[in-house]
Amino acid sequence: MQPYELSLTAAAAAIRARKLSPVELVDSVLDRIEKVEPHLEAYVTVTAEQARRAAREAQRDVADGRPHGPLHGIPMGLKDLIDVAGAATTASSRVRADHRAKTDSTVAARLTAAGAILVGKTHTHEFAYGLTTPQTSNAWDRKRVAGGSSGGSAVAVAAGSATFALGTDTGGSIRVPSALNGVVGLKPTFGLVPRHGVTSLSWSLDHVGPITRTVEDAALVLAALAGHDPRDPASLAAPATTYRPGAGTDLTGLRVGVPRNYYFDHVGPEVEAAVRHAIDRLESLGARLVEVEIPMTRYIQATQWGLMIPEATAYHEHTLRAVPELYQADVRTLLEAGELMPAGDYLRAQRSRTLMRQAWARVLKEVDVIAAPTVPATAVQAGQPTITWPDGTAEGVSDAYVRLSAPANVTGVPSLSVPVSHDTAGLPIGMQLLGRPLGEAALLRVGHAYEQTQPARELAPV
Amino acid sequence: MQPYELSLTAAAAAIRARKLSPVELVDSVLDRIEKVEPHLEAYVTVTAEQARRAAREAQRDVADGRPHGPLHGIPMGLKDLIDVAGAATTASSRVRADHRAKTDSTVAARLTAAGAILVGKTHTHEFAYGLTTPQTSNAWDRKRVAGGSSGGSAVAVAAGSATFALGTDTGGSIRVPSALNGVVGLKPTFGLVPRHGVTSLSWSLDHVGPITRTVEDAALVLAALAGHDPRDPASLAAPATTYRPGAGTDLTGLRVGVPRNYYFDHVGPEVEAAVRHAIDRLESLGARLVEVEIPMTRYIQATQWGLMIPEATAYHEHTLRAVPELYQADVRTLLEAGELMPAGDYLRAQRSRTLMRQAWARVLKEVDVIAAPTVPATAVQAGQPTITWPDGTAEGVSDAYVRLSAPANVTGVPSLSVPVSHDTAGLPIGMQLLGRPLGEAALLRVGHAYEQTQPARELAPV
Repeated sequence: MQPYELSLTAAAAAIRARKLSPVELVDSVLDRIEKVEPHLEAYVTVTAEQARRAAREAQRDVADGRPHGPLHGIPMGLKDLIDVAGAATTASSRVRADHRAKTDSTVAARLTAAGAILVGKTHTHEFAYGLTTPQTSNAWDRKRVAGGSSGGSAVAVAAGSATFALGTDTGGSIRVPSALNGVVGLKPTFGLVPRHGVTSLSWSLDHVGPITRTVEDAALVLAALAGHDPRDPASLAAPATTYRPGAGTDLTGLRVGVPRNYYFDHVGPEVEAAVRHAIDRLESLGARLVEVEIPMTRYIQATQWGLMIPEATAYHEHTLRAVPELYQADVRTLLEAGELMPAGDYLRAQRSRTLMRQAWARVLKEVDVIAAPTVPATAVQAGQPTITWPDGTAEGVSDAYVRLSAPANVTGVPSLSVPVSHDTAGLPIGMQLLGRPLGEAALLRVGHAYEQTQPARELAPV
Repeated sequence: MQPYELSLTAAAAAIRARKLSPVELVDSVLDRIEKVEPHLEAYVTVTAEQARRAAREAQRDVADGRPHGPLHGIPMGLKDLIDVAGAATTASSRVRADHRAKTDSTVAARLTAAGAILVGKTHTHEFAYGLTTPQTSNAWDRKRVAGGSSGGSAVAVAAGSATFALGTDTGGSIRVPSALNGVVGLKPTFGLVPRHGVTSLSWSLDHVGPITRTVEDAALVLAALAGHDPRDPASLAAPATTYRPGAGTDLTGLRVGVPRNYYFDHVGPEVEAAVRHAIDRLESLGARLVEVEIPMTRYIQATQWGLMIPEATAYHEHTLRAVPELYQADVRTLLEAGELMPAGDYLRAQRSRTLMRQAWARVLKEVDVIAAPTVPATAVQAGQPTITWPDGTAEGVSDAYVRLSAPANVTGVPSLSVPVSHDTAGLPIGMQLLGRPLGEAALLRVGHAYEQTQPARELAPV
């Protein structure tokens, strides 16, 4: 096994035990990047030189017995919406051609403090405003979409060209590409991970979170990311807690909500079968399955878009007027649409969100987690505009990809996407676990228990 | 001295000492209402029969030695935006002609539980959307405006036709009429007093609070009102605290911010002199005066209106379409204007508010309270459209009345208006004390200390 194939947990343990050096690990990942990048284009920039220098320092720290952070020497990719001092934050956009960040974002600073080493900035759908990331190829099939908007991060983690990565998630942008590339993605509770220094898409829906190879890895990264930062006005002063799941797989007493509506409507048959099979596995571990009714489903789409569209336009107000021609056509259309939206529609969306949060809180009193598909279909062909469902109806790819992930953005509840299987074309399928606000530990426990019952996950065969 | 002339604190002490019975007090206030209402029209409805019945019960409780709440037997007026089970909440509007509340608002229920007795529902500017309350006359001069929107409540307290009252405050609607009628008005920290069951004007700016004859009275009422209620999504889970100010007047060590900009611009010379004189009095009690710069003042008006207009329209959406002719012309115009506002303008106002809160928090690190005029002028003649300032510029009456009170609504900081003097026409002048979020105790302490240096306040000579 090559170092780039190791999970974060395994790599960190090997470094701690001095069985692996940060230099070997970083070199292995950089070699992997060199090999697979021509096919995948997961990265906007690879910071090979700085990464090698940081790895040598990390190695000296190990040799000298200096204390290490929990992510000491671990190579990471950061979605290119996340500021790193001295580097451009391109947001995969020509609008940001001359950009350069002066200081680290809070998350970059926290991961660096924990010992992680940046190997590169990963591609996003332009300004995170889309669900495909057209620059990047799916790690399992180059002709298929990476998913988005954190497509580069998910593909890099799936292909072994980053040991872990960060994404952002406004309507599903961590979980959708994670599901489509067979990796783990966590959208934490709204406000748990500070967004200072992260380019905004829609500030009342934006989240930052980890993309990893295992659930245990996600817990390790979350522990380094979480915690109050007054520079993000939505940042929570949540009490510190332990995210790392225990070793056992016993879920006795845990109540898993299985939606009777919405989450299994217009879902591909292979996706549905795989997720239901994974839910049955949770039951076999001792969990009690409880049917739940998802509330206010007819308002989800209007609420998500009603909040996102005007907030995104507000953020881009000045550049949209100054350099509209530098945006991609799809993003420019969405941004310009936002200029026409009346305040009343935005307010209806805000009010609907308040009611939806209350209604979800009632459901989440009855169960500990809810299990559902992350995305209703696996990765589509690049350029494919719609998905046709068995009943003959067609749905836009972006609408379909965001449909099952948006509720967690509107309500702010945490959601963890875990790979459960592959379809007959060999494409990954993800299950999402949704929990109570600040209930990340429960999601990670369930996801980890499930994962231990499965064969070890392999990298995408790039 | 007649019972209706007693402050809440004095009346409650007399009832506790069995020197005054709830029946005597309620009868005295109801007699006063009968005498002054023809001149003032502070009330939409007087609930004389129910009040007398409640007073007899309260008296029996005293006689039987049953435990009493802190407001036992005290007659109160509630602004007619506040639901009381079985009564209409007219909002002083024809739109609500057929309205009837099914349950008590949180504040009505809490005051009733504390022993207070409703004597009537007081007039508001229609739906709280204005600063004059045209139905009601100023308690000190019948030809002058009551101020608004809680005009009925302030006039009733000033005239002795309620021992205390509640108002609501979205841009100054508790403090403006309190200042113009020579009574104490407290707009608490946003979220401290729950608004469940209170008709909304603008949910992100609305506050409920007491209007009283003394600062000590305001503390007593606030103690009964404050506390979390999950039915108001903005309600804070603030820790319980003591609001009642101590007996001393020593303010040594307290830093009082005196604005060098904004709060003394375009302020009538008699108002300015009276407020500066009161601030000097705080200094003579030991406070240290510190000049402060009020931040972002050019954004205050746009932020206040940018938030209020679309939220008000959203609340009235259905009735505005169904029965537009039932609204008064001024309110209908404002509501219809809200239909034309783009979401971008609302979002700019939301973002400006976030920045303004942060900027005010920095100022309020340097001082404990800020002292300023509540309203730049005393009560104008009814129907007077503008105020002309000494430099020859004219300002709309509502714009002028809201100008100095709106910052506390936008930022959510608490603000207490205390009477300080009268102008040469005999009209009351108010000083407002602004403090840190949840810093009500400091405001009440300063206001009470100031009050003790002044001659006992008299009722308006109706």
